[in-house]
Amino acid sequence: MLELVSEHACYGGVQRFYRHDSREIGLPMRFSVFIPPQAEQGAVPALFYLAGLTCTEETFMIKAGAQRVAAELGLMLIAPDTSPRGAGVEGENDSWDFGVGAGFYLDATQPAWAKHYRMYSYIHELHELAAQELPVDAARIGIFGHSMGGHGALTMALKRPDLFRSVSAFAPIAAPSKCPWGVKAFNGYLGEDKAEWAQYDASMLMAQSKTPFPAGILIDQGLGDKFLQEQLYPQAFEAACMTAAQPLTLRRHERYDHGYYFISTFVEDHLRFHAKNLATA
Amino acid sequence: MLELVSEHACYGGVQRFYRHDSREIGLPMRFSVFIPPQAEQGAVPALFYLAGLTCTEETFMIKAGAQRVAAELGLMLIAPDTSPRGAGVEGENDSWDFGVGAGFYLDATQPAWAKHYRMYSYIHELHELAAQELPVDAARIGIFGHSMGGHGALTMALKRPDLFRSVSAFAPIAAPSKCPWGVKAFNGYLGEDKAEWAQYDASMLMAQSKTPFPAGILIDQGLGDKFLQEQLYPQAFEAACMTAAQPLTLRRHERYDHGYYFISTFVEDHLRFHAKNLATA
Repeated sequence: MLELVSEHACYGGVQRFYRHDSREIGLPMRFSVFIPPQAEQGAVPALFYLAGLTCTEETFMIKAGAQRVAAELGLMLIAPDTSPRGAGVEGENDSWDFGVGAGFYLDATQPAWAKHYRMYSYIHELHELAAQELPVDAARIGIFGHSMGGHGALTMALKRPDLFRSVSAFAPIAAPSKCPWGVKAFNGYLGEDKAEWAQYDASMLMAQSKTPFPAGILIDQGLGDKFLQEQLYPQAFEAACMTAAQPLTLRRHERYDHGYYFISTFVEDHLRFHAKNLATA
Repeated sequence: MLELVSEHACYGGVQRFYRHDSREIGLPMRFSVFIPPQAEQGAVPALFYLAGLTCTEETFMIKAGAQRVAAELGLMLIAPDTSPRGAGVEGENDSWDFGVGAGFYLDATQPAWAKHYRMYSYIHELHELAAQELPVDAARIGIFGHSMGGHGALTMALKRPDLFRSVSAFAPIAAPSKCPWGVKAFNGYLGEDKAEWAQYDASMLMAQSKTPFPAGILIDQGLGDKFLQEQLYPQAFEAACMTAAQPLTLRRHERYDHGYYFISTFVEDHLRFHAKNLATA
């Protein structure tokens, strides 16, 4: 079911890349897994990491430097690709912020995209697959991500807090319904019905939720991030958390930008946050 | 003199990419620098990192996860590119292990290559440039590298232990005169004269040296490295260290391969090794 593409010893554990035929996407998909040394003794908690625009299943594992702390804490890390590859939809390679590399973690409803662009359901498929095929404690799974993947992590966790027990994000697209990236993606994948959009907008979901994460949500945002003003809207998510009485730690960091040098600086804090939440989950 | 290409806040310090017109190469060159937060208070010790075949000035900074410990220890990290770019030598793009991305940290003598392929002298130029333009304590500089860059680090340090006070390597090409990568490079850049080759062969230099690093040399080698048998010859360098009474810590690691998941696992040990050596240098 899972085809091992490559594996690399890393921090006493193993970094693996897998390929599989995805039921939801209808195409082969790739994902990466870091398995900590503690998994030799039994099932471990796992974190899904959802990457941003243009990234692949490799990006986080290469650039974030997260394996060190994951090996210490006994956390598995699972990172999917960011879209189908090879769907053959007309125009899917024309933009870096829509189509290939930009699946936005939603299930498309527009006819051209609806068959393969089903990243929301794909993450659930991968969740099932991990529970079946990897030494994962399925009761202790968290999710985090960056930018488009921060949007993905927040929306997936808010829709299914029973499956994703802990959530955090780096510079998430926190209110996609009102930023250019989100509007383009939602129009293209979902069409013009704003009720559909609301199902994938973290700030709108949060405002209507019932405090699903009593231990809090962690978000890091760089103030030197060139996308902050136009695309990210952390303040909208912050306001929604206030409305819903959802505890939120939103840290704003002078000088830090939108890239992996920012993520690598703070990734240890995220792993420790999730490990603590999942220890008591 | 130095053109700043980009900069990124990272672990309280800053990750920079520079471009400059190189005197020795006769072409523009790029390099990367991580400046730790301690540099705001004054000059800091620095480590040069020399990368392997096909890499660029970005590879180490993206993949090794070294900035965290460098920020803790107050070490600057400096990583050059691995060859000239745009020299226009016929055939320079034909192989991944010779020409572009494969400068082998030597000064070529063969006519086609001698004008631009001068990476040995270029590292010295960069050493001068760093001392002039960056907050570097020029009396406290170490060097390390990987594979082709491990060869580069060992040979540069053995030839100039007065400039490079501390040296280590990951999976170095430790006896290039007798492995296919080295024979190809030395024949191509230096011609057939084996006396020329000996000037750039770490094991031959070591055998004739007078214990230039009394605090020792650190080498990590994975036993799952597919290049170990044919290309690397750590045992030759180990024997030369015995001959020269040079203390060597050569650690052989089960399962680890030749890539950056291996390097990232052990890079912290290398930084702490250099910081200790340079504290007393």
